[in-house]
Amino acid sequence: MLLTPLTEIEARVGRLQGRLRAAELDAAILLQAADLFYFSGTVQSAWLIVPAEGAPLLLVRRDLGRAQAESPLARIAGMAQPREVPALFRAHGLGGLRRVGLEFDVLPVEQYVRFGRLFPTVQLVDASRLVREVRMVKSAWEVAIMRRGAALQDRMARRLAEILRPGVSDMQLAAELEAEARRHGHQGPIRMRRFNAECFYGHLLVGEDGAVPSWIESPSGGPGLSPAFNNGPSGRRAGAHEPVLLDYAAALDGYHSDQTRTFSIGELPAEGARAYEACLGVWEAVRERLRPGETAASVYEAAVAVAERLGYAERFMNAGAAQVRFVGHGVGVELDELPVLGLGSDLRLAPGMTLAVEPKIVCPGLGMVGVEDTFLVTEGDPELLTMTPRQVWVV
Amino acid sequence: MLLTPLTEIEARVGRLQGRLRAAELDAAILLQAADLFYFSGTVQSAWLIVPAEGAPLLLVRRDLGRAQAESPLARIAGMAQPREVPALFRAHGLGGLRRVGLEFDVLPVEQYVRFGRLFPTVQLVDASRLVREVRMVKSAWEVAIMRRGAALQDRMARRLAEILRPGVSDMQLAAELEAEARRHGHQGPIRMRRFNAECFYGHLLVGEDGAVPSWIESPSGGPGLSPAFNNGPSGRRAGAHEPVLLDYAAALDGYHSDQTRTFSIGELPAEGARAYEACLGVWEAVRERLRPGETAASVYEAAVAVAERLGYAERFMNAGAAQVRFVGHGVGVELDELPVLGLGSDLRLAPGMTLAVEPKIVCPGLGMVGVEDTFLVTEGDPELLTMTPRQVWVV
Repeated sequence: MLLTPLTEIEARVGRLQGRLRAAELDAAILLQAADLFYFSGTVQSAWLIVPAEGAPLLLVRRDLGRAQAESPLARIAGMAQPREVPALFRAHGLGGLRRVGLEFDVLPVEQYVRFGRLFPTVQLVDASRLVREVRMVKSAWEVAIMRRGAALQDRMARRLAEILRPGVSDMQLAAELEAEARRHGHQGPIRMRRFNAECFYGHLLVGEDGAVPSWIESPSGGPGLSPAFNNGPSGRRAGAHEPVLLDYAAALDGYHSDQTRTFSIGELPAEGARAYEACLGVWEAVRERLRPGETAASVYEAAVAVAERLGYAERFMNAGAAQVRFVGHGVGVELDELPVLGLGSDLRLAPGMTLAVEPKIVCPGLGMVGVEDTFLVTEGDPELLTMTPRQVWVV
Repeated sequence: MLLTPLTEIEARVGRLQGRLRAAELDAAILLQAADLFYFSGTVQSAWLIVPAEGAPLLLVRRDLGRAQAESPLARIAGMAQPREVPALFRAHGLGGLRRVGLEFDVLPVEQYVRFGRLFPTVQLVDASRLVREVRMVKSAWEVAIMRRGAALQDRMARRLAEILRPGVSDMQLAAELEAEARRHGHQGPIRMRRFNAECFYGHLLVGEDGAVPSWIESPSGGPGLSPAFNNGPSGRRAGAHEPVLLDYAAALDGYHSDQTRTFSIGELPAEGARAYEACLGVWEAVRERLRPGETAASVYEAAVAVAERLGYAERFMNAGAAQVRFVGHGVGVELDELPVLGLGSDLRLAPGMTLAVEPKIVCPGLGMVGVEDTFLVTEGDPELLTMTPRQVWVV
């Protein structure tokens, strides 16, 4: 079982502490699973207190033994009830907190209200952004895990090429690919941060299903099986000469990797092939911009400029009200990380960022074509983590 | 695609409105996916406003066309930005709200803060409990969906009996069962309400893995594949004469069904068989109590009394700090619904409640044995929804 090394945790906590001091916060208190995993190495039910200076404290509700085995942090203590927290803070020299950051973007109101009662004199502020920005830059240790995810995605793509045939339903394909993923260590859950965002592996969409929009913040959606969970496959059967979009994420040892490939039984119609070439053109324009110092918005603008020049402005990243205003996003311990390569983002790219770039185009009557790769930003040219050949996979 | 009928929605909204009036609330505003699905029939990104009297209003951010196709509500309108909401409220005769209930248990702080800014004079209170209590009692329409889930669970159990053999890993088994489930319409995601609760199908645990506690509020946990998502299978290989616990939920058309069965390659050791018989004794004692008017706590107490009498007080529902203080829970559009058949719950059982009853016992050195069924409370004897024979499945 892969444990997060102390050196990783120390570097992450150190970067968060720098941002806490810059924001004049005395501490961040983190409760959400992905943040706990990132900053402590465990997702056991716990509160992680990261003071602006000094050692973090992990207060564990359940299971203490496992948290101790999984986290390399030095200060780990048990907590039976949240009402013990103020006394535990004092016992660990954290009694004087005045301004504390919480994960406003994911923390339920109920927990926030409880904080207010436990610490009536402490000012509670939103630290979501700080936490998410610390997580943008990955270490070599993290990138190595993501490379394994990329290899798993390559395996899924090759498996789809083997089993895609006329008349097979998307759910039969999904069942096979998901089983293949699990046999090779896929953890199952895809973590997304956005409220209500639910993703089951991702989108495996046959033909016109690929153009069906959904509430999820993604260019593709798909009808899903029912209004209860309405993205992803719908039970549709594959026919010849239509795009089959495979956008299944890998999730291994807590890290995600994102890739999309387009498949077709027999050649795509000319319109689909032409749109796919346009996606490759956007991909290339984006790749050239993935360099330290570029803003996330400028990358998006470059993508839109190519899509416009090739005549796809209205159908790039879906159409009408379903069109999304980004061409990619960070990926790591959550699938929807910062930076978003999208409209208005002034975040600047930096070495170590891992970015999923996903130009997609709707073809009326056909569905969605597109391509997606996860890149690592370096000092020089960006490095591809995903590895599946980028042609349309004609079977 | 199964749509929720208007009669269902009207009955649900009517019950919520009764509770709103009793609590002197002018409205509830619901944003969370499971609640949106239950009260509107769609999970498109939206705000559902249920006034204490009069017709609900669904304000849809994305995708409006799909929300209109999926929800039978009469008042559905588009909303580009939340800042439009106050004007939209006034336009729909909802300008005079003074006391409004929100889902404090699941709503992120960020959304709550935004509400406060949009409606500075409105008092915001917690309506989680009202919403969850309305959902406890199921209609015949809902129960019919859950029966289909129970049939899918029976299929999974029978498939496990076919493929369980010495040396097979839990992940190989998981891959097969999950594929079987997807081929028969399993929606994928299991919805749990509790903060940070993540469940991927459930727990398929081999031998001693069954006794490994986790942070999840469940008698079993399992090591999981990594500290990033630490419940469920771990890669362990099955041996003879040890329990294999199959606690995989079904999720079809938005509704869950919960069942556990214990398997063994060759007979269980005497200690395991004896503990399993004790679980059946608890199961029977609980079954006798599943009648209208009983409190949820009294059902739990009856279960504990049997476990104690049979000598399992210390190992019933896990052991030590990992012991949980319930023997069952409601199940429906979320897996962890009310009532919890547990310590201190004064909720009274009523016809139409669907309750998962899951007596489990830890056997040191062996793992966990147990059984779980989903019951429907009726005016008379409770009715079993799950259908798999309740013996230890010896293969």
